Amino acid sequence: MALLVHKYGGTSMGSTERIRNVAKRVAKWARAGHQMVVVPSAMSGETNRLLGLAAKLAPAGATQDNGRELDMIAATGEQVSVGLLAIALQAEGIAAVSYAGWQVPITTDSAFTKARIKSIDERRVKADLAAGKVVVIAGFQGVDAQGNVTTLGRGGSDTSAVAVAVAVRAAECLIYTDVDGVYTTDPRVVPEARRLKTISFEEMLEMASLGSKVLQIRSVEFAGKYRVPLRVLSSFTPWDIAIEDEAVSGTLITFEEDEKMEQAIVSGIAFNRDEAKISLLGVTDKPGIAHQILGPVAQANIDVDVIIQNVSHQGRTDFSFTVHRNDYARTMELLKTSVVPKTGAADLIGDPKICKVSIVGIGMRSHVGVASKMFAVLSEEGINIQMITTSEIKTSVVIDEKYMELAVRALHKAFDLEQSPP
Amino acid sequence: MALLVHKYGGTSMGSTERIRNVAKRVAKWARAGHQMVVVPSAMSGETNRLLGLAAKLAPAGATQDNGRELDMIAATGEQVSVGLLAIALQAEGIAAVSYAGWQVPITTDSAFTKARIKSIDERRVKADLAAGKVVVIAGFQGVDAQGNVTTLGRGGSDTSAVAVAVAVRAAECLIYTDVDGVYTTDPRVVPEARRLKTISFEEMLEMASLGSKVLQIRSVEFAGKYRVPLRVLSSFTPWDIAIEDEAVSGTLITFEEDEKMEQAIVSGIAFNRDEAKISLLGVTDKPGIAHQILGPVAQANIDVDVIIQNVSHQGRTDFSFTVHRNDYARTMELLKTSVVPKTGAADLIGDPKICKVSIVGIGMRSHVGVASKMFAVLSEEGINIQMITTSEIKTSVVIDEKYMELAVRALHKAFDLEQSPP
Repeated sequence: MALLVHKYGGTSMGSTERIRNVAKRVAKWARAGHQMVVVPSAMSGETNRLLGLAAKLAPAGATQDNGRELDMIAATGEQVSVGLLAIALQAEGIAAVSYAGWQVPITTDSAFTKARIKSIDERRVKADLAAGKVVVIAGFQGVDAQGNVTTLGRGGSDTSAVAVAVAVRAAECLIYTDVDGVYTTDPRVVPEARRLKTISFEEMLEMASLGSKVLQIRSVEFAGKYRVPLRVLSSFTPWDIAIEDEAVSGTLITFEEDEKMEQAIVSGIAFNRDEAKISLLGVTDKPGIAHQILGPVAQANIDVDVIIQNVSHQGRTDFSFTVHRNDYARTMELLKTSVVPKTGAADLIGDPKICKVSIVGIGMRSHVGVASKMFAVLSEEGINIQMITTSEIKTSVVIDEKYMELAVRALHKAFDLEQSPP
Repeated sequence: MALLVHKYGGTSMGSTERIRNVAKRVAKWARAGHQMVVVPSAMSGETNRLLGLAAKLAPAGATQDNGRELDMIAATGEQVSVGLLAIALQAEGIAAVSYAGWQVPITTDSAFTKARIKSIDERRVKADLAAGKVVVIAGFQGVDAQGNVTTLGRGGSDTSAVAVAVAVRAAECLIYTDVDGVYTTDPRVVPEARRLKTISFEEMLEMASLGSKVLQIRSVEFAGKYRVPLRVLSSFTPWDIAIEDEAVSGTLITFEEDEKMEQAIVSGIAFNRDEAKISLLGVTDKPGIAHQILGPVAQANIDVDVIIQNVSHQGRTDFSFTVHRNDYARTMELLKTSVVPKTGAADLIGDPKICKVSIVGIGMRSHVGVASKMFAVLSEEGINIQMITTSEIKTSVVIDEKYMELAVRALHKAFDLEQSPP
């Protein structure tokens, strides 16, 4: 019998019928003797509805100022969810109590609409658990030191669940969602994609940031930092499946490196077609040049992903990076008007029709030749590699977007990902 | 320039367009130099929508236990309203900040779904006002000593507004609603009904409790007790009418008895056709008989309105009272099975087809013959009076419901209510 945190996403909470199913599932775990904390999201569509009302009243461009009020409004979605889930649990005969973020309290900084959790007071929750109650805590929200309501940004409920799990020292944090786990790659691209039974936190971080949008990346960082085992599993299995089966379903994200030893070198293929690449050619290679180029971009609030600068020739080098495709035109304009003149770049070129494909695997640390095998596979398919970056457990290439599916399928097959590890 | 509290009902907050109008109206007052606190209700329909979701999940009959969760859910309606109104005010260029009940805090007892306000900490509000901000406070809700969210029951936002006005020592509390004031009687029954420019708190209490559903009765009690002038006025006038005109519109509910001296003896005719009368005939007239009859009724959570017991003859008396018509059958059954046998009543009779008509006026205190004039008027119309009760400023009669309109019109005319007072 363990202390467990369950997290249910907006789709799982999308109607009273679905909330009743969540309650039946949680009740099953509680009756089996587990101490249960549940962190639900707002009912699907509710956060958008609320922010849509606010958008109708806010003048364009004034969003900076009204973050505090947007958080007041958005936080109500989860508050409704916890109340409804507590009532549904009571209807199942399970003692349950709901808390908004400020009631726990979950204390955050004051960065409205994207706050970060600073601390969680676990005492009230622990006392309720000791009294035999299921505790239902609103995800996505907290309260700052001045007593203002804050929210953690989209997907923040995952982070709430993990942070609560850390605070109460839960044995595991189970993230119920509308997929049944983490796959070797997107099954829509590679039908042979296989669900991973386990994945390391580091791999999951690379997979998440590369577009496997199963979990909010901050929640994975958090879980990894505090060593809370995370499990991603489906909320659409029948609520009354046996606990023994449910407890090992989905994908376990773990810090146990031992388990990984037996596994494949490459765990998955991630990809992202939302990016655009930009290159400044022949810039003077002197200290501060990277900041001179990317400083104005960061100031314009444009996120940069891949950054590549190779060795220089005769004091000049080429500087490349990628941005979200939606920011491509704005970034090009910004560079043309305020960066190119100052850096003396010979040319500015860009391409929005690219994609990034990555192989991810903790085994790459100890196995040489993984990257070169990737390049060989792409070469065999006649795919030209435009950019390359690597990290300890990831190798990414930028290629023409029309080759994306071909590249992902070829790599998935070449690294034997469709078969279970030995 | 004064410190004022504005309260806007759910209809006034019913859409983003209407919220924008509220913001423009409040902005007009703020720009004129007034310190403004605004207490809005939830958008119309929202509280019902939220409680409807909860009702789908709660098993029938378990409502006693889940009051705490119902309040968590229902309170979000007003929280959304304050956030939206603050954003709309900011869009008008007015500095504004919103607060949920727990943030002020508005402290209540723990009677979930029908809590009573115990205290309001005015310091945060006062500091914001001093800093030139409009303060928007969620109506209908508070927080108990244990940090649980509570609500004040239907119409509770009126009480919130008055309580806030008391706490901040506002010069006046303006209740914006969908009617333009308090009338001498219901204009749908008497087209000549006239809007009262002023009415005393005591008269308003009698009018409110008798069915002029303009204000929650507790808010009037509260305002009277703490001597805060209340004004009921329409939120459907154009937002940009001159403040001088708006400030004297509607009906002022006042504790200034002086103003009343010039006015009519009778201020209005109230009526209620939701009641049913019940009589126990020939009960033994001994100490405790009233409690013996009404104790079981109260225990069954049935509200009793009028209660009449006349002098007894030969040790026996008739005991009559009225209940809401919806409770009629249940009350009759209860009396038949558990009261009649014990009290030795000779007979139990009842009639759900009655109505109550009342004349209300603070002038009745000092003028004899007002009640007898009422009886004379009804007699001239051939209306039989079934029951009579009186208080200091009110005389009520129970009559057959088919005579209600006739009685109200005749009384309205006889007491010269269609004409303005001299």
